[in-house]
Amino acid sequence: MAILEKFLAQVVKDVDMRLDELIPASGVEPKLLHEAIRWSVFAGGKRIRPVVMCAVGNIFGVPSEQLIATASAVEMIHTYSLIHDDLPAMDDDDLRRGRPTCHIQFGEATAILAGDVLQTLAFKTIAEDDSLSADIRIALVALIADASGTPYGMVSGQQLDLEGEGAVLSIKQIAEIHRQKTGALINASALAGAMIGRARPDEVEAISQYATNLGLLFQITDDIIDVTQNTETLGKTAGKDLASAKSTYPAHLGLDRTIEMADTTRIAANAALDRLEKDTDLLRQIADYICQRTK
Amino acid sequence: MAILEKFLAQVVKDVDMRLDELIPASGVEPKLLHEAIRWSVFAGGKRIRPVVMCAVGNIFGVPSEQLIATASAVEMIHTYSLIHDDLPAMDDDDLRRGRPTCHIQFGEATAILAGDVLQTLAFKTIAEDDSLSADIRIALVALIADASGTPYGMVSGQQLDLEGEGAVLSIKQIAEIHRQKTGALINASALAGAMIGRARPDEVEAISQYATNLGLLFQITDDIIDVTQNTETLGKTAGKDLASAKSTYPAHLGLDRTIEMADTTRIAANAALDRLEKDTDLLRQIADYICQRTK
Repeated sequence: MAILEKFLAQVVKDVDMRLDELIPASGVEPKLLHEAIRWSVFAGGKRIRPVVMCAVGNIFGVPSEQLIATASAVEMIHTYSLIHDDLPAMDDDDLRRGRPTCHIQFGEATAILAGDVLQTLAFKTIAEDDSLSADIRIALVALIADASGTPYGMVSGQQLDLEGEGAVLSIKQIAEIHRQKTGALINASALAGAMIGRARPDEVEAISQYATNLGLLFQITDDIIDVTQNTETLGKTAGKDLASAKSTYPAHLGLDRTIEMADTTRIAANAALDRLEKDTDLLRQIADYICQRTK
Repeated sequence: MAILEKFLAQVVKDVDMRLDELIPASGVEPKLLHEAIRWSVFAGGKRIRPVVMCAVGNIFGVPSEQLIATASAVEMIHTYSLIHDDLPAMDDDDLRRGRPTCHIQFGEATAILAGDVLQTLAFKTIAEDDSLSADIRIALVALIADASGTPYGMVSGQQLDLEGEGAVLSIKQIAEIHRQKTGALINASALAGAMIGRARPDEVEAISQYATNLGLLFQITDDIIDVTQNTETLGKTAGKDLASAKSTYPAHLGLDRTIEMADTTRIAANAALDRLEKDTDLLRQIADYICQRTK
């Protein structure tokens, strides 16, 4: 896993450095707003979406300089969604990555605005990324807006998730919610890498299938972790899904079958890569890595 | 005023029709989310930003088809900001344009998501507007993201506004808050029209000066209306600014001097247009129209 670890560390470093440049300094007025943004953006996230995007870009020969801005933008979108998901009116979470959530630390109004403006900064970042042609930038804005919007995107997934609380959902409904809420942006991250790398349609198709399974894998392992780990290890309130009666894979299938499903999904993700005549080792290692989070 | 009235009605019609196409139908899942978006977008707004954008585009000879998508996007950004501003954690408003605000009607979580995704749809709309070149679309995304973001944009203005509540602000501070919160997006609307019309730098400068004054005029007249009209006429809770101890122009200067200031600002807006060798009659009528709202 040495190659993967080195790659992960490099992406985190590059993306964090770029995010630091892109987000107004905490000394810039309104200071509280910029502090709140930085609190949530620099909270030790694993930058999974940038990692996926950069790994896909790499196999199509894209230099890192052409990936980091968009990868940072995707991470901004993800962070905005976390800030808003944690709000009292939504999932009402006090703890995220081992520290107080944005609204606990900075108040609800500032947290709403911090999330709002992170989305704005994300699209600004892509629009102003002069390492890419205007055509590609426009396609990226559309791709990421689709994946994070509605219908069939991140926000519609979050809405379905909220509406599903307390209800008994079918496994198909659960999968659809996850596909929109988490899967769509992970998929878009992979497709962004392929798009910048000017991948052929059949290559895009293979990457999309890999990423769809990766997104599903990510959600399944998240559900497993929520059941099996305690709040301290998790850095967010454990057993939260159960407490709020959310339909999850373990609630539906039991823990053992969910763990089996994770492995099947990991295998499906990697199988999609067989169609690419490229060195896909890194992408396979990412799928393995996500699977191992639960252990 | 017959020309202006006809123009206003046409822009409202065109923009509303486009918004109806761009926003998922209320029958599309998640229905509640799309109903909430439509509730707020089709609430009888005056579409001032699209009007300004289209009027500026017109004087530079831009056909309406090249203006309506971006104008609709700007209106989505504006509407998202209204939905979030009305939330309990923000201005806590129950009434907007004579009906319950989005969170009163659909619940807080759905209102947060409706606002979030309206912003997403706005940038998607610009990115996918194939009546414009990729270069122009990218410039528009950057322009509107800047104007609606931070620092010096709509969200930073909203943050400053919240922080200023209960404090005694100087007239300079009040002006800066308004310049960011309301002025920046009105200015960007005008600049978007000029940009699509490939206006020369000196023309852009004149338009910007006009629009800056127009934005200020809009805020001053809003403050006047809040003091002088009752809740029924206003369609939102009157005297709200006073009740929440917000620093406003009338609170600072008194009503008479605020009315004087509105007129001076209107004259300054129109004076900026003298430098353009174009038929600017419509733009002048818009400034007059905004001023007359208070009467």
